[in-house]
Amino acid sequence: MEPIDIDRVVLLSHDEFQLRIKKIRSAMATAGIKAVLLSDNANIYYVTGRVFDGLVYIPASGETIFFVRRPVVLKGDGVVFIRKPEDMAQTIGLNVPENIGMELDLTDYSKIMRLKAIFPESELKNASPVMRMSRAVKTDTEMDFLRRSGTRHVHVYAQIPRLYRPGMTDLEFQVEIERVSRLEGCLGQFRISGDSMELYMGNLLAGDNADAPSPYDFAMGGAGLDPSLPVGANGTEIKPRNTVMVDMNGNFTGYMTDMTRVFALEGIDHPAQKAHDCSLRIHRELIEMMRPGTAAKTLYEHAINIVKEEGLHEYFMGHRQHAGFIGHGVGIEINELPVIAPRSRDIIAEGNVIALEPKFVIPHVGAVGIENTYIVHNDSVECITPAPEQIIGLDF
Amino acid sequence: MEPIDIDRVVLLSHDEFQLRIKKIRSAMATAGIKAVLLSDNANIYYVTGRVFDGLVYIPASGETIFFVRRPVVLKGDGVVFIRKPEDMAQTIGLNVPENIGMELDLTDYSKIMRLKAIFPESELKNASPVMRMSRAVKTDTEMDFLRRSGTRHVHVYAQIPRLYRPGMTDLEFQVEIERVSRLEGCLGQFRISGDSMELYMGNLLAGDNADAPSPYDFAMGGAGLDPSLPVGANGTEIKPRNTVMVDMNGNFTGYMTDMTRVFALEGIDHPAQKAHDCSLRIHRELIEMMRPGTAAKTLYEHAINIVKEEGLHEYFMGHRQHAGFIGHGVGIEINELPVIAPRSRDIIAEGNVIALEPKFVIPHVGAVGIENTYIVHNDSVECITPAPEQIIGLDF
Repeated sequence: MEPIDIDRVVLLSHDEFQLRIKKIRSAMATAGIKAVLLSDNANIYYVTGRVFDGLVYIPASGETIFFVRRPVVLKGDGVVFIRKPEDMAQTIGLNVPENIGMELDLTDYSKIMRLKAIFPESELKNASPVMRMSRAVKTDTEMDFLRRSGTRHVHVYAQIPRLYRPGMTDLEFQVEIERVSRLEGCLGQFRISGDSMELYMGNLLAGDNADAPSPYDFAMGGAGLDPSLPVGANGTEIKPRNTVMVDMNGNFTGYMTDMTRVFALEGIDHPAQKAHDCSLRIHRELIEMMRPGTAAKTLYEHAINIVKEEGLHEYFMGHRQHAGFIGHGVGIEINELPVIAPRSRDIIAEGNVIALEPKFVIPHVGAVGIENTYIVHNDSVECITPAPEQIIGLDF
Repeated sequence: MEPIDIDRVVLLSHDEFQLRIKKIRSAMATAGIKAVLLSDNANIYYVTGRVFDGLVYIPASGETIFFVRRPVVLKGDGVVFIRKPEDMAQTIGLNVPENIGMELDLTDYSKIMRLKAIFPESELKNASPVMRMSRAVKTDTEMDFLRRSGTRHVHVYAQIPRLYRPGMTDLEFQVEIERVSRLEGCLGQFRISGDSMELYMGNLLAGDNADAPSPYDFAMGGAGLDPSLPVGANGTEIKPRNTVMVDMNGNFTGYMTDMTRVFALEGIDHPAQKAHDCSLRIHRELIEMMRPGTAAKTLYEHAINIVKEEGLHEYFMGHRQHAGFIGHGVGIEINELPVIAPRSRDIIAEGNVIALEPKFVIPHVGAVGIENTYIVHNDSVECITPAPEQIIGLDF
């Protein structure tokens, strides 16, 4: 493989770049959008294979323009350096689109108003759904990035049992996992679309801390170390017959896999084991249903039916507080489409990459259940986080 | 000290809460804003001492209302649970303000439009400047949080030399610093206002990687490990007579100090040492000028004059790409007011907490210069990151 020229504005291959632009244009056509203007880091990375500070302008036809503010060294077809957004006007010139789509669900109001003023004649449209839908169906290249993250993610998890030492707190255990993960090449950044959810390197929950409700829309909570970041490990000591749920960052390539496994000292008791087995059953049954054309909400409903049948409803997706979903798309960000939730309107499609995380919180024991990331193919699903699924012992 | 009741919506003391509300109301009065509605995590943390999912409604007079969506367990005066923002209407009732300030520089366009629709009679105003200005002047309690972060930050940096082992890459060195920092209580989360800047746990730059331009508006760049996150360590081996600049996360309390020190194997050569000494001189001279009433831009100008006098201009704040500022406020986030930059309109005030970071990039050597965080008092400044400032040896 040739070394990449890091100063190129488009680091994707020509074919891959064209493929993504074509997907975006197809979604634009469906939405009646004549041009999109992107400035979100995740969307810029999707279009170009790199993050830069600036804007990408994609008209329905014609060349894509890269308005670059920083870094100042970028080069390639379509690169136009700008100091401020208003400098775009000169390049757009008289080719003003009838309407323009911007990332209205992501970009702050003031910036949208400033950008809109550069296109006074164009009707403002919302390009957020266009980008979410384009990114929900992964290309072959994206699947390879995800598989590579999955392989390394699995490799990190295999090392977890040897990192435990008696008397450790949840934080101490997590820090050793963070270290191994970073040395394995984890980029650290935990990309979440929108600005209301925050998490550092993932979530490790020991014992009853799993039952602490959090403000964030994650599947599980945890009190955290400080009220400024109330999620995850809280300094609790890892105790026998409690569980330790590890749900740590899988961003090794710019694309994130999502994976959860449960660890325990001296095994765990009946209700927790039963709930863990129920999670495995939900995985087994849902991956048989997770085919192109299936409504995402039917997956949720099927899971709920299993949980009720097994009498575990009060523990499902939390105990003091319940999460409203059991799975979600992953890719550049951790919260992509489709969403596996009761009111989801998403339909499973070939190329979706979905993390399923049916989990339970059992009081006085902790969290159980697993999470895997799956690629949806036409007549199968591919697990890209393959690893032992039973509760894993931390005993020496 | 009594243990805090973590389920209380306001974790600040009564007096501290009133003080902050009073500061916000004073800024609202100046801006002619009759009520503000806050949903940004950093602003909610500022008002209450905790992060929750929901909105804080502060009218010019009357009680503050906490509209809480999650966690579902919060309690206290003024708490109203909502499932969706529209549920606020019932509580606001007929007390509709003449205008309402929202975080227009932070909150996405779609959410602002949705919130605005709940207040159809109220004129929309921008509350972002109100909150930025309130937060720029720290209370005594906030200064204590910052001092506590500074103490632990300094303690981590003191351990850095012993973490080095010959043959390490920048990443391997950084990972060991991350580990020590986390065990010292660093929360990890690197809070940056706005969504265009991303950084994981801070920046460590070895040798010529310091000269790699980044897309982000940090003082220094670095190529990073991957084009999806092009900043910081890039896997380069730490070499003799090159520098290693360490600028790592100081968020130990919800409030972040900012601190940079330089390390080297076998010392460094003349131009780099001269530039490092110039950074120290800039600190010495600027902290004498950094008094209430001084225009922030005059600090920048003074620094530039020193740099020019010493003939180091081409290396200042970067070499292939230059940053446009030499200092910035810190607090809950890393990029608060005031900004020490050529076109800054900020005036230094008592209670500002400012990180000064005059730095240089010397080709074939690396980055030099230091960063400290200072509290501005009436007739002095207080350095809250006190530690040796010379280039620190990594030799065994």
